[in-house]
Amino acid sequence: MERVEIAVIGCGPAGISAAITAKVRNKRILLFGNTCPSNKVTLSHKVQNYPGLADISGEAFAAAFGKHLKVMDISVTKAQVNAVYSMGDYFSVQAADKIYEAWTVILATGIFSGKLLPGEETFLRRGLSYCATCDASLFKEKVIAVVGSNEESDAETRFLSEMVSEIYYFPVGIESLLIPNKKLHIITDSPIAILGDKKAEALKTDKGTYPIDGVFIFRDAIQIQQLVPGIAMDGPHIKVNLNMETNLQGCFACGDVAGKPYQYIKAAGQGNVAALSAVSYLSEKAPLSL
Amino acid sequence: MERVEIAVIGCGPAGISAAITAKVRNKRILLFGNTCPSNKVTLSHKVQNYPGLADISGEAFAAAFGKHLKVMDISVTKAQVNAVYSMGDYFSVQAADKIYEAWTVILATGIFSGKLLPGEETFLRRGLSYCATCDASLFKEKVIAVVGSNEESDAETRFLSEMVSEIYYFPVGIESLLIPNKKLHIITDSPIAILGDKKAEALKTDKGTYPIDGVFIFRDAIQIQQLVPGIAMDGPHIKVNLNMETNLQGCFACGDVAGKPYQYIKAAGQGNVAALSAVSYLSEKAPLSL
Repeated sequence: MERVEIAVIGCGPAGISAAITAKVRNKRILLFGNTCPSNKVTLSHKVQNYPGLADISGEAFAAAFGKHLKVMDISVTKAQVNAVYSMGDYFSVQAADKIYEAWTVILATGIFSGKLLPGEETFLRRGLSYCATCDASLFKEKVIAVVGSNEESDAETRFLSEMVSEIYYFPVGIESLLIPNKKLHIITDSPIAILGDKKAEALKTDKGTYPIDGVFIFRDAIQIQQLVPGIAMDGPHIKVNLNMETNLQGCFACGDVAGKPYQYIKAAGQGNVAALSAVSYLSEKAPLSL
Repeated sequence: MERVEIAVIGCGPAGISAAITAKVRNKRILLFGNTCPSNKVTLSHKVQNYPGLADISGEAFAAAFGKHLKVMDISVTKAQVNAVYSMGDYFSVQAADKIYEAWTVILATGIFSGKLLPGEETFLRRGLSYCATCDASLFKEKVIAVVGSNEESDAETRFLSEMVSEIYYFPVGIESLLIPNKKLHIITDSPIAILGDKKAEALKTDKGTYPIDGVFIFRDAIQIQQLVPGIAMDGPHIKVNLNMETNLQGCFACGDVAGKPYQYIKAAGQGNVAALSAVSYLSEKAPLSL
């Protein structure tokens, strides 16, 4: 697969801005988003302080962004990114059922506003996974739990059911259309914690405890530390400098995930800076490999 | 005079963005600009990467900004700011013929792209001034030179001629409409340096040397260190952190003057951050004085 120059993760104002500037600079890019512009933009109330677009509704704002992407001929890869790994001088991006490669990455994921299950941080990569494609093979003939709250949850669970021996599937805030069978149990309990010693061993719910060999969690946003192993944080945000550089060479961050204030115009501004920092990184650091 | 909560110096994308967000936050503000939006915006070529305004001309961009200011009911104080002094817990802003006061200041001046005259840095406040209103009285009955390149130069020179004994007036790149007289000499030489020992003593031109007691320079942009005594720099830019704070308490900077890249969307984003930092400074640091 072709290795792109810049992978932009996230389709809010920061990611869209980064993609636009990267494209103006003639870079080969990938822009990832579940929806684009993100639902958060479309569903927002009136935006008063994005200079040049006075008093605009979230819908009109999203339409203006969508139009700009179209004018620039930027296509969106509609896939949830599950992991970004620094491979030394490039990055591996795992999204849905594919692995992409990029020389640089711009993280514009927004901020995770949900709550983690207790145990989630402890057991990541120790029985807990966010990516069926990546990790299903680790659980062949095992018993797993699936906690699913996004629209891909059913499909991912169906795929997992082909690999494992038994699944306890907990749809959370979604209606599952899957039909239970001997291997697949659909359970309406509310998951409240992942238990275990050195690895995940049980899922505790409000009504009982389910012994398992592993657990998959599917939701639309995952914690940034879990998305990008090794990324340095400053509280809940990625640690950046004024050039939007992170601690990982070639990895930049912008928008809400890079700190407050959570404002569209700030996010778009930082997206621009991140893109230009990536551009100069590409020309300085990787002149031979491109 | 009423002390405003936030004085915004500069009417490019950074200053306009700061003013809009400050107004949304219901702050009493002053927005200073010679023209608004700045000529630099109006005269710019097509802007491709301001997300939401695809492929927009400088003129249309300036119109969109102007409209936004109008919608927000933000008026512009059309006056050149000559000095910003930190007075401890507030700021004194000298602009044209008035002195304004503000609890906080947001510097969005853009970057000075002209060249200084040799000696200009050395003799500031030692015989050299940028502000007739501020300093005319220091030169009563003295001989001065005026180097003028902006549209206020004639008016400022006429005012000075009422105070001093003799003026050598050097219009640079402008056509002076003043009529010379015994006190006022209009000279077409090109100024090349300010000379002196402990203070400015002569103006050197391409054709001769004029002994003087002082010199006034009028141009549309002045160097930021000269505008804001005590401001900490990082090369040619004001030193800022991610919150757009400078080394001076209550003083924030954004846009080109706060560093590269020189991009509208980056400037607008930083203006938003500067405004919100000023807002939180006002609520945290000065709850009693407001």
